[in-house]
Amino acid sequence: MPNQLGRRERRRLEIRDRLYTAAMELILERGFEAATMDEIAERADVARATAFNYFPQKAAFLYEWGQRRRERVAEVMAAEHAEQGSAADRLRRYLAVLAEQNTANRTATVRLMDAAIRLGDALHEPSLDLKLAELVDAGRESGEFRSDVDSAQAGTLLAAAYFTAVLRWIGAEPEPFDLPAYLDGMLDMALRGLVE
Amino acid sequence: MPNQLGRRERRRLEIRDRLYTAAMELILERGFEAATMDEIAERADVARATAFNYFPQKAAFLYEWGQRRRERVAEVMAAEHAEQGSAADRLRRYLAVLAEQNTANRTATVRLMDAAIRLGDALHEPSLDLKLAELVDAGRESGEFRSDVDSAQAGTLLAAAYFTAVLRWIGAEPEPFDLPAYLDGMLDMALRGLVE
Repeated sequence: MPNQLGRRERRRLEIRDRLYTAAMELILERGFEAATMDEIAERADVARATAFNYFPQKAAFLYEWGQRRRERVAEVMAAEHAEQGSAADRLRRYLAVLAEQNTANRTATVRLMDAAIRLGDALHEPSLDLKLAELVDAGRESGEFRSDVDSAQAGTLLAAAYFTAVLRWIGAEPEPFDLPAYLDGMLDMALRGLVE
Repeated sequence: MPNQLGRRERRRLEIRDRLYTAAMELILERGFEAATMDEIAERADVARATAFNYFPQKAAFLYEWGQRRRERVAEVMAAEHAEQGSAADRLRRYLAVLAEQNTANRTATVRLMDAAIRLGDALHEPSLDLKLAELVDAGRESGEFRSDVDSAQAGTLLAAAYFTAVLRWIGAEPEPFDLPAYLDGMLDMALRGLVE
């Protein structure tokens, strides 16, 4: 059966999960800088060399964190059949579900997003751009968005708005604004534009 | 005479300039991390304790760098009487002059912007947001922009677009796109919006 994984693949995913969970626990307990690969491997009960095979550097856990969040958004949207709405609704829902993952665990977001920014990954790494660009492109093709919109650049603009909003939101205690509402405002502005 | 500075103030500005120049030289020669406060003070021929009075930490040079660039933009726009155009033109010119400062010295931009991002200053620090918000607000008041635009949030969106564009532009060799043209596209999108 095609979606039944072989024993080796299951074992591989299980080790990967264990390492990821151990890394997240340690980063949350002590911060990204303080958590070491040795400790992560030890807590996951995996040999050090094996740990490095799965995650060649600590920053790889941040990448995995981002990827898992995007997968989670896709799952939520699929469960809601949210892929079927207008392009604007899909963009709105995509950002809202991402935002919910930040607000559901602010401490984790502070620790991990801050590290991701400092390592440059969140901003250089274009995964979110590409996903948002894809949603914009669908709206362009259906005629909902202007035909002369550059989807890639629109994806970058929306991702930039998202990361900046989250950075500001984690940058002050207590939280300086309601993140989902703020992102909604950003999206409205990008959809409607500034010009009267 | 009010705009003639006293000797003490002139001396203070001169020391500040010397420290700033020494810091920029060393950061360009060796990178932000490698340049130390001791070396900066020595090259500026200023006592270490004095240097710390002017710039309490190395990151303060990055802040000064950003501030001087914004001042330079203001000077260029004043010389061109660019403050008198439409709000859209002023936003366009503001971003273009900022972009020119990046393209005129790509090496400096790579070294300094990268450090500014990693230290979180460029993204947390709202000076550019505020300046752009001011320009948006003028357009809102003149009726050029929609009256329900949140100027502060628009300033943040445009600043986010600017920093992300510069980050991408410094993130690849050779430069992956024409920065002024790219920023122009970002601004157009923000002005006109995505929706047909």
